[in-house]
Amino acid sequence: MPNLTRESVAAWDANDPLAPFRGRFAIADEKLLYLDGNSLGRLPAATPDFLAKVVTEEWGAGLVRSWSSWVDLAGRLGDLLGTRLLGAAEGEVVLSDSTTVNLYKLASAALAASDSRRRTILYDATDFPTDRYVVQGLVAERGLTARSVDPSELPGALGDDVALVVLSLVNYRTAELHDMARVNTMAREAGARVLWDLSHAAGAVDVQLAASGAELAVGCTYKHLNAGPGAPAFLYVRRDLQSALRQPIWGWFGQQDQFAMGPDYDPVDGIERFLVGTPPILSLAAVQPALEICAEAGIDGIRRKSVRQCELIIELADRWLAPYGISVASPRDQERRGGHVSLRGPETWQLSQALVEAGVICDFRTPDVLRVAPAPLYTRFTDVFDAMERLRTILEQGDHLRFPAERGRVT
Amino acid sequence: MPNLTRESVAAWDANDPLAPFRGRFAIADEKLLYLDGNSLGRLPAATPDFLAKVVTEEWGAGLVRSWSSWVDLAGRLGDLLGTRLLGAAEGEVVLSDSTTVNLYKLASAALAASDSRRRTILYDATDFPTDRYVVQGLVAERGLTARSVDPSELPGALGDDVALVVLSLVNYRTAELHDMARVNTMAREAGARVLWDLSHAAGAVDVQLAASGAELAVGCTYKHLNAGPGAPAFLYVRRDLQSALRQPIWGWFGQQDQFAMGPDYDPVDGIERFLVGTPPILSLAAVQPALEICAEAGIDGIRRKSVRQCELIIELADRWLAPYGISVASPRDQERRGGHVSLRGPETWQLSQALVEAGVICDFRTPDVLRVAPAPLYTRFTDVFDAMERLRTILEQGDHLRFPAERGRVT
Repeated sequence: MPNLTRESVAAWDANDPLAPFRGRFAIADEKLLYLDGNSLGRLPAATPDFLAKVVTEEWGAGLVRSWSSWVDLAGRLGDLLGTRLLGAAEGEVVLSDSTTVNLYKLASAALAASDSRRRTILYDATDFPTDRYVVQGLVAERGLTARSVDPSELPGALGDDVALVVLSLVNYRTAELHDMARVNTMAREAGARVLWDLSHAAGAVDVQLAASGAELAVGCTYKHLNAGPGAPAFLYVRRDLQSALRQPIWGWFGQQDQFAMGPDYDPVDGIERFLVGTPPILSLAAVQPALEICAEAGIDGIRRKSVRQCELIIELADRWLAPYGISVASPRDQERRGGHVSLRGPETWQLSQALVEAGVICDFRTPDVLRVAPAPLYTRFTDVFDAMERLRTILEQGDHLRFPAERGRVT
Repeated sequence: MPNLTRESVAAWDANDPLAPFRGRFAIADEKLLYLDGNSLGRLPAATPDFLAKVVTEEWGAGLVRSWSSWVDLAGRLGDLLGTRLLGAAEGEVVLSDSTTVNLYKLASAALAASDSRRRTILYDATDFPTDRYVVQGLVAERGLTARSVDPSELPGALGDDVALVVLSLVNYRTAELHDMARVNTMAREAGARVLWDLSHAAGAVDVQLAASGAELAVGCTYKHLNAGPGAPAFLYVRRDLQSALRQPIWGWFGQQDQFAMGPDYDPVDGIERFLVGTPPILSLAAVQPALEICAEAGIDGIRRKSVRQCELIIELADRWLAPYGISVASPRDQERRGGHVSLRGPETWQLSQALVEAGVICDFRTPDVLRVAPAPLYTRFTDVFDAMERLRTILEQGDHLRFPAERGRVT
């Protein structure tokens, strides 16, 4: 990138085929540079009216009669997400519960179905905390063993004691993107299953569940998919495995002929057997307009722009921030990097606070990581450029040193 | 009720202190008689604007910064619900997940903490199906025994093999209201714990968790509490038991100093240790305006009116419907009856369909029960009278016989 000026970057925006999608989001403050879509995606412009209609017409006027359309909403949205954005077939993805509850359900189901001599779960201790907490809970409950493993050392770690590998496709802290097909093959050959957490991947990278031979996955919809704070999570179980697996929380939304209210639990054959209780319809409904935007833009175009924006961040970090001791903590190879770039340095907590004051929202992750996430659907190349320039100015002027080094709560 | 005419009933409405609360709900169709608030409560008039503000201002404009107020929303709403409507202390109730997931969490926690020689769960097979499915799942997973018991036979059934009793305070089908204090005392004396399902009780009857000695409870907020379709459920754990109990799904919302993202799960000491993953904020936010109405009206007044409305249903059923073979399937003693009245008869499925055509929504529960639920906050005495009169007319004219006897899906 030889001639890297604001003007040259503005020209990229002018030629960006995704540029019109920014208008599909409700941007309350045009001056705010929001590079935190990997924590909470922006509000789609269509969502308020869509949701108001669900509230007023479906709940308010339709009342209980609206359950005829709500009852399979989780499956319809799962199909939209699965087939358009995750490379799955129809009937393999469903919206349900939280990511954590889904991790628990699918990990339990996989463990229950595995050879009882396999008593070890491999996980990556650098993954998002809830993933390791779920694993620790299962281990405590069932007298199993958990072993943290660096994914690069997986072949050696996959002994014949391993039942399950729990791994994030994109690491939340470093943005490292794993080779899904390779890990799936290694695990299969070693007789273990892999449960993927796609929370930081869905809507950001081209997840190819079927083509990579994935068997099990979960993930959230409120980051790159823009479905709203705490929006219902999803789960994926490859079709041919569904009837062989049983999740442990038996509830009426997984029951055959649910409204017959039969005496004994007898789960449906399809993906809905992994459902549990009545879903939160308002939060679930908001998933629809969000997914529709991503599906319309297409994951290929999203990923292409994301790669370029992340390269811009890396290039500017090298030029402008490296002299201040800020280094790029994400892989430089785009094939190994997800949808954000992590910067590491001694005063990143204070930097994140100074950035907020300067009208830039990134996010800090303990102990020393600043995550910069350019969501391609609503972030311009000039937004990235301007945010990096403000970061440089803060460092130049030492503005961030006015903030206490002590960390507060960050989400 | 000697002089029971529409005029006399209209006079009750004129003197009803809760009558103004009907204006606090969005009534889209004034002609519709909605007697199904025990399945899905009506939309509070304040909810659309309240939710629109959460969507547009908190999510849209506030973005990730709004987590500072969302992060403890489940606890704040839990306190409002617990202290104003369930007779609990602060820090004993929290909103979380679905009723089914909460049943699983608390039942698991109670079983894990009980004497390992106690391997039996007692449950009521006539309770809502999801309750027995959860019990069946736990039994299958842990090699326990489950035994269905009629609550009236509890003293004899509480042997020294019993770890846990799972029971609904109000039976969804018959509206039978159990004596919570008595059951709690019997169980305590027998060395067992009771896990109450308050789904059909919360917001309808005066639940006295503390005064009755209750230890564990769960319930939903979308019936008599009017929080919206599939709104987040709640759970209650008596304060002194909290630190002794551990639920099995370890997630980051139960973790001490959550945003430190520590390596090992170490749950908080309070009620939040029973939380799991990120809550669905839009559905959760809608709980607030709904609870505020109930708290303002007061559970005493709600219950008083509910009893009187149920007595009116019973009286009219005896006069008008008994000749057609319709009988009252709910207890006649108000002390033993919850917030609805169940009618039983040979053609109740067809009756429920004919009622819809006549502008009355009640609900049918397999195999032969028609539930009539007068939610006191928005149902007038004349609504009850008119609905019962339409039911009589249908029976007189045999209108319902035009509908097929085969049952479709009902929620």
